[in-house]
Amino acid sequence: MLVQKYKDMLSAKSVIRELSEFATARGQEIGYENVFDYSLGNPSVPVPQAFTDCMVQMLSETETNALHGYSPSLGITSVREAVAASLERRFGLPYRKEHIFMAVGAAGALAHAFRLVTEPGDEILTFAPYFPEYGPYVNLTGAMLKVVPPDTGNFQIHFEKFEEMLTEKVMAVLINTPNNPSGVVYSAETLQRLAETLRRKSREYGHTIYLISDEPYREIVFEGVDAPCVSAFYDDTVMCYSFSKSLSVPGERIGYVAVNPNCRDAETMVNMCGQISRGIGHNCPPSIIQLAVAKVLDKTADLRVYETNMKLLYGELTKLGFTCVKPGGTFYIFPKALEEDAKEFCRKALKYDLVLVPGDTFGAPGYFRMAYCIDTEKVERSLAALRRFVEENYL
Amino acid sequence: MLVQKYKDMLSAKSVIRELSEFATARGQEIGYENVFDYSLGNPSVPVPQAFTDCMVQMLSETETNALHGYSPSLGITSVREAVAASLERRFGLPYRKEHIFMAVGAAGALAHAFRLVTEPGDEILTFAPYFPEYGPYVNLTGAMLKVVPPDTGNFQIHFEKFEEMLTEKVMAVLINTPNNPSGVVYSAETLQRLAETLRRKSREYGHTIYLISDEPYREIVFEGVDAPCVSAFYDDTVMCYSFSKSLSVPGERIGYVAVNPNCRDAETMVNMCGQISRGIGHNCPPSIIQLAVAKVLDKTADLRVYETNMKLLYGELTKLGFTCVKPGGTFYIFPKALEEDAKEFCRKALKYDLVLVPGDTFGAPGYFRMAYCIDTEKVERSLAALRRFVEENYL
Repeated sequence: MLVQKYKDMLSAKSVIRELSEFATARGQEIGYENVFDYSLGNPSVPVPQAFTDCMVQMLSETETNALHGYSPSLGITSVREAVAASLERRFGLPYRKEHIFMAVGAAGALAHAFRLVTEPGDEILTFAPYFPEYGPYVNLTGAMLKVVPPDTGNFQIHFEKFEEMLTEKVMAVLINTPNNPSGVVYSAETLQRLAETLRRKSREYGHTIYLISDEPYREIVFEGVDAPCVSAFYDDTVMCYSFSKSLSVPGERIGYVAVNPNCRDAETMVNMCGQISRGIGHNCPPSIIQLAVAKVLDKTADLRVYETNMKLLYGELTKLGFTCVKPGGTFYIFPKALEEDAKEFCRKALKYDLVLVPGDTFGAPGYFRMAYCIDTEKVERSLAALRRFVEENYL
Repeated sequence: MLVQKYKDMLSAKSVIRELSEFATARGQEIGYENVFDYSLGNPSVPVPQAFTDCMVQMLSETETNALHGYSPSLGITSVREAVAASLERRFGLPYRKEHIFMAVGAAGALAHAFRLVTEPGDEILTFAPYFPEYGPYVNLTGAMLKVVPPDTGNFQIHFEKFEEMLTEKVMAVLINTPNNPSGVVYSAETLQRLAETLRRKSREYGHTIYLISDEPYREIVFEGVDAPCVSAFYDDTVMCYSFSKSLSVPGERIGYVAVNPNCRDAETMVNMCGQISRGIGHNCPPSIIQLAVAKVLDKTADLRVYETNMKLLYGELTKLGFTCVKPGGTFYIFPKALEEDAKEFCRKALKYDLVLVPGDTFGAPGYFRMAYCIDTEKVERSLAALRRFVEENYL
């Protein structure tokens, strides 16, 4: 008998996927260049040449069994050392290879982090607006994801509602800064208050509440924005990182778990990740990709286009009267819709070939997301459509 | 609080790993070339040049976002089509892309297969001798692995004991042919009787008992041996494949699930794999590796050395009086130890720098495994040590 819960999931439609499929189909009618497709968060800038070069070099020069052989289940030792050294240089925390577990993308890293600290029935809290895949990621472990409603004023944390929901059943809090979908970066003040709350509640409940920090957008931070290192605020932080956005290689599924060196059980936790892998069929990320990222740890793709696009959109949106928190990073913006039902708003936008995603998907109804990881030229052309859409429907 | 079950696993020692570590340490004393290390099943033949060439070509010629972009969660469509076409050509079953799910190695494929058909508390049966990782692979899903004792006469299936253990709680049967550790290939007769038993019991219990066929050694079959296609015997077969051994790329974690096209729910099952992925952080294998294997589907590394090594070892072992089933494939042989306690036997062998793995680890006490994926020259030199070991201890 096939397992019903997975079978049932097949009939649930993903709003983002449906919109993306609409955009593709519409593109076949009118040319994809004329569809202002803001649906998908798919990196669009080229991969750094250094990544390609070192892949080719390894393929040409390294003995094949050394290059393509088994990686230890925690990751290739030299790669873990390089990641730790890079984190230490950058954030000033004493990372060593013992704190690093190489994972297949952020999804793989999170899959380990959740299993480290929750048993079935435990709760993990996250904050709206949030990446909707967190739902199945957490709930399919047997733990439960609960979502704290958003502070729509600034999309930092709604601390009052957070404290209400931070019961004894909560074993971990999951954050994502810079944030998908809001583009907001949590401030030092937010992180400080979050850490104090977690310390206080951990004491009160007599168990550690872990902070799981999902950081795939860490390298996409705009000029003048301070993006503090989450782990520096709270010892019991499990950082989950992916190179998907920084190197524009989302298909290569490469990332890591970095447990805060100041966490009492850091080394045990990394070793436990190796055991968790055995249960979820993970084992380790592909060896050649591990070796390649280790050689370009301090490089990124040319990410400036995202800031250019943000400025164009933020300028036009505010001019048109949208309420909108200015993104501090990522390639997302999350304005308030011009009518209460954001789904209806986004449906109307489709007539102007503007593909926007309603905020309901992200736990923030009444808002919508634009993923502006597209060509600047297209963003520029989309502004006229945006104006027409607003003028003909909301003025 | 850290999850105890994973913490507890840290203190369990892997016999194979300990022996491998002993071999490495001993190698530092006397030179690794003098340690007859038969502990690890790590492919030793070079990767086919065609694989390397097409990796380099893609890196040089393909636009980077197309090459390294997100793969659909079921796998890249053209890759699934190529795999299906190759399976159809080879095995004559009507495979289409709808039957193929690309996975990170056989471990990833198995992680999906187990979750497709078992709920916590259900049982999966496998047959000794068996790959010991099946234990954590299955048990960490919440299902239970039960092991049918071996038929030591030929290491085919002990059908009498199998029928006894095939209760209503069994939702799947897991086989591995060619087999690690015995090297034995299941005969058509064995597969026919297995299929008949599963059909009969499925009818009796009113639920399908799925056959999960783990086939990483499918391409390593020796001259004159018939290795029948498992899926051809039983419609409800989920094939789990890995390219690790056929292409000598175990570190690149690439394989697939192929559901038998004659299985009633085949397409649904493949789609369910995409949902299972969300819960275990799998998503999809790295895109460049998917694209590369699709171009060399009908190629293998030069695997002949394994047969050469087998003949040398089998000849010497039988000459020395060992009881030993002749391997039909893989790079393993599984003789009977010369004393009842195979652990003691293997301990004594270490004094001759022969690193052998006791069969207890594989559910077959009294036997031992030799993994002969090493240079033929070293196998030849090891024969004298083997003779000395036997003569000084057992004659």
